[in-house]
Amino acid sequence: MCRWAAYTGEPVFLEEIVSRPGHSLIHQSHGATQSKTAINADGFGVAWYGEREEPGLFRDILPAWSDPNLRSLTAQVKSPLFLAHVRASTGTATSRNNCHPFVVGNWTFMHNGQIGGYDGFRRDAEMLIPDPLYPHRKGATDSEALFLIALGEGLRDDAKGALERATARLESLSRLKGAAPHVRMTAAFSDGKRLFAVRYATDENAPTLYHRWSEMRRGRAVVSEPLEAGECWDSVPPGSFCTFEADGVTIEPFEPRCLARVA
Amino acid sequence: MCRWAAYTGEPVFLEEIVSRPGHSLIHQSHGATQSKTAINADGFGVAWYGEREEPGLFRDILPAWSDPNLRSLTAQVKSPLFLAHVRASTGTATSRNNCHPFVVGNWTFMHNGQIGGYDGFRRDAEMLIPDPLYPHRKGATDSEALFLIALGEGLRDDAKGALERATARLESLSRLKGAAPHVRMTAAFSDGKRLFAVRYATDENAPTLYHRWSEMRRGRAVVSEPLEAGECWDSVPPGSFCTFEADGVTIEPFEPRCLARVA
Amino acid sequence: MCRWAAYTGEPVFLEEIVSRPGHSLIHQSHGATQSKTAINADGFGVAWYGEREEPGLFRDILPAWSDPNLRSLTAQVKSPLFLAHVRASTGTATSRNNCHPFVVGNWTFMHNGQIGGYDGFRRDAEMLIPDPLYPHRKGATDSEALFLIALGEGLRDDAKGALERATARLESLSRLKGAAPHVRMTAAFSDGKRLFAVRYATDENAPTLYHRWSEMRRGRAVVSEPLEAGECWDSVPPGSFCTFEADGVTIEPFEPRCLARVA
Amino acid sequence: MCRWAAYTGEPVFLEEIVSRPGHSLIHQSHGATQSKTAINADGFGVAWYGEREEPGLFRDILPAWSDPNLRSLTAQVKSPLFLAHVRASTGTATSRNNCHPFVVGNWTFMHNGQIGGYDGFRRDAEMLIPDPLYPHRKGATDSEALFLIALGEGLRDDAKGALERATARLESLSRLKGAAPHVRMTAAFSDGKRLFAVRYATDENAPTLYHRWSEMRRGRAVVSEPLEAGECWDSVPPGSFCTFEADGVTIEPFEPRCLARVA
Repeated sequence: MCRWAAYTGEPVFLEEIVSRPGHSLIHQSHGATQSKTAINADGFGVAWYGEREEPGLFRDILPAWSDPNLRSLTAQVKSPLFLAHVRASTGTATSRNNCHPFVVGNWTFMHNGQIGGYDGFRRDAEMLIPDPLYPHRKGATDSEALFLIALGEGLRDDAKGALERATARLESLSRLKGAAPHVRMTAAFSDGKRLFAVRYATDENAPTLYHRWSEMRRGRAVVSEPLEAGECWDSVPPGSFCTFEADGVTIEPFEPRCLARVA
Repeated sequence: MCRWAAYTGEPVFLEEIVSRPGHSLIHQSHGATQSKTAINADGFGVAWYGEREEPGLFRDILPAWSDPNLRSLTAQVKSPLFLAHVRASTGTATSRNNCHPFVVGNWTFMHNGQIGGYDGFRRDAEMLIPDPLYPHRKGATDSEALFLIALGEGLRDDAKGALERATARLESLSRLKGAAPHVRMTAAFSDGKRLFAVRYATDENAPTLYHRWSEMRRGRAVVSEPLEAGECWDSVPPGSFCTFEADGVTIEPFEPRCLARVA
Repeated sequence: MCRWAAYTGEPVFLEEIVSRPGHSLIHQSHGATQSKTAINADGFGVAWYGEREEPGLFRDILPAWSDPNLRSLTAQVKSPLFLAHVRASTGTATSRNNCHPFVVGNWTFMHNGQIGGYDGFRRDAEMLIPDPLYPHRKGATDSEALFLIALGEGLRDDAKGALERATARLESLSRLKGAAPHVRMTAAFSDGKRLFAVRYATDENAPTLYHRWSEMRRGRAVVSEPLEAGECWDSVPPGSFCTFEADGVTIEPFEPRCLARVA
Repeated sequence: MCRWAAYTGEPVFLEEIVSRPGHSLIHQSHGATQSKTAINADGFGVAWYGEREEPGLFRDILPAWSDPNLRSLTAQVKSPLFLAHVRASTGTATSRNNCHPFVVGNWTFMHNGQIGGYDGFRRDAEMLIPDPLYPHRKGATDSEALFLIALGEGLRDDAKGALERATARLESLSRLKGAAPHVRMTAAFSDGKRLFAVRYATDENAPTLYHRWSEMRRGRAVVSEPLEAGECWDSVPPGSFCTFEADGVTIEPFEPRCLARVA
């Protein structure tokens, strides 16, 4: 279980989300409260959109709390749309290639959760990645595979549907060759314009997902747990797909299961 | 506050102390129980004596729990005398040069604790390091300085006296330019033959220090907290200097304070 | 193109091969003479056999010449059989998981060379790795894939045949979807008892392979280029498979091509 | 001997200097032509001025050519004033704290060269760092010491004089306790408004220093060796102190020696 935070709105310094708040992502890296694993010290990453279509990407394997490069970068760089992640490995090695977010072209993706028994069918999962996208397969995580499969399912044209289909295919593999709980996840991803987030589980224990509009920042934070105690955050119900745009939030049902049946 | 473990006796695989026990040093790296900081993820190190007079030294800045090199090394290497450490930085950077143990010639040293207000008089402290030893000053920690000052005070010929004098000099600086608590420490060090350990504080809160003879291993472990719950460990009282040799343990009073007064 | 060195014989300190000789592997890491790339600074690794059936493995991403852990390890550890490698990436990321040697159970493998156009058919290559071995697929290199495919082809029972079949399958993919030169390689691998090495290319430019018996060490070094200038080294001809055992060297033809045709 | 490049002018992406040119700094990291050491793979760093008074700082110990974070950062970040450095260690460890540039407040500094016999008088050199600046002493390099001593000598108010005095003091130590050549250096440093550079040696072998105005970029690059072959670069003579400002370049004599005599 990892922790993550994303932002969309008026440009702010990355540190406004990553390190400044009382329960900032960096604070969560050594003291998460709503995660099964309190320590998320197996690497971190941040992807931010700037002047170019492709986002910047900075990932390293140190604990986020002790990386001076991360501190300096987040204090200098402003962005209207960024995603940040601290990792608690569920088994795969601590390596930059296994750190979130993952970037392909103008798309970036990060994930928290697990696909039950993934190690037992990783090869089958990787076979679901289309050839043209395979060069982007750099690491060994289920998260990167989910992203690449979703891109293959048409993430660019149909974000919700593609992620449903990709999740359904991995969920089917988990039901066939894996173990319960089959899927527990939150994920956030973006094309540089819209910020998407999903909360989903095949059981009653979907990881938490929150968002909050800040009048002060004129922007919205989307997080795996609130950045400040005592603030009022909107909790997203399980089985939800969220689209965050300038004019607000759209929440639709996220239903990979029905597809899984027909898969 | 860091966590450490040392061993002297019949040769055992390093993992017997470092990773195998239920509350092994690696386990403590993400769940210390008797330390103020539960997480010790700012680097680790192990120094072991083998066929050569100088010990081997392996240090890195990853959390100990996620380093495959450490796992492999401790599974392969046997030693009759070794020291291992997991670090929770009290401010200085996460860098290999700031990781314990420190090695000079055939001597190795590791430390847990703090010298009150050290940042305010680091320069004065480094001035206490004699010129011939100064090339060994690689990092910025109070621990490495204490070691080098003690070597300058004659650690080779009078381990207890030299460490008392070195501690007294730093304690004096802390009283003069630093802040209370002036000294809280445990330390373990060795010349490759004897294993020494000290527990000391200028207040009532000396970090814990334990040791235990294992009939099974025919050796003794000396640790900052017990390696197994339910085992019977001997607790060393504050103000003690321990010498561990084949024929047993010698415990003497450790009294830098009186020296501090006259310093 | 990487550089590597292996040793089998009376136990010697790893440094006898890795760092001591005038043109040691570490020296080659910043000044290889018979390699297209003079600099091999994209990580290193050493696997050594000791008291256990499984070898020790130490890999890191720093240039070999600047890693104090490597220096200390090779100065402390003695082994009768070990493999060491310095890497010059041909494209894949600098990551520990992409560093050689690779280890599966008691087998270890390292490689120098290239499979033409590999990036274009990496997915097909990974499909050749049997399910039971897939969890060992940690990185993205052609080298690790070749090793795992060879294990799947029966490396344990028929080292030469299995590596011929594995090479043939990748060569076929390169002819089908890749580019010339299809295969250029030297490789060394071991089960902890015998040391194997191969030199092979589909064109006239097979990477160099040498070996030399040392009376002084009572052991044999097998290398991608000689460790000392002026010494007399035996050059292995292209298309050779070498088996190094206590009682000497067996050199057989290595012929994956004929198999490739029928593949 | 390291390699470095700096820029002042209209904001450009860092990659315009760091990675894009044919003989960019990253290219020089594995093939410097005017440096005694062709390989500069012992770490790198870049400091850039942005919206804040303090510069951003990104340093790591990988070879610059293989760091994806550096590639992404330099492709995303634009700056009107930045300094970049690739390091070839002259002895001190490969550690982020030993990587250039060094930053104190709004000042940043990088250096190429050596102070003869520095290891023999490092302690004396560090004694020249005033107490208030000592907390900024993070590593062990002569370069960082020179910077901090110069700050202590009044770099803020008298850049040229302060660096002359600091250089003179280290030169005196080298003459007293060190070895010839006593000083060989180029350095670049900035307060966020002006870019300074110096070329100096106590013998005839001052490292090279060049600068060039680009009409296309509307800015000036200052480098240890030209970024493109065939371009026309202005070579700065030895014993020069350069101040680069919007309205052009001021070159004054740099004469620490006379001060060294009276020191």
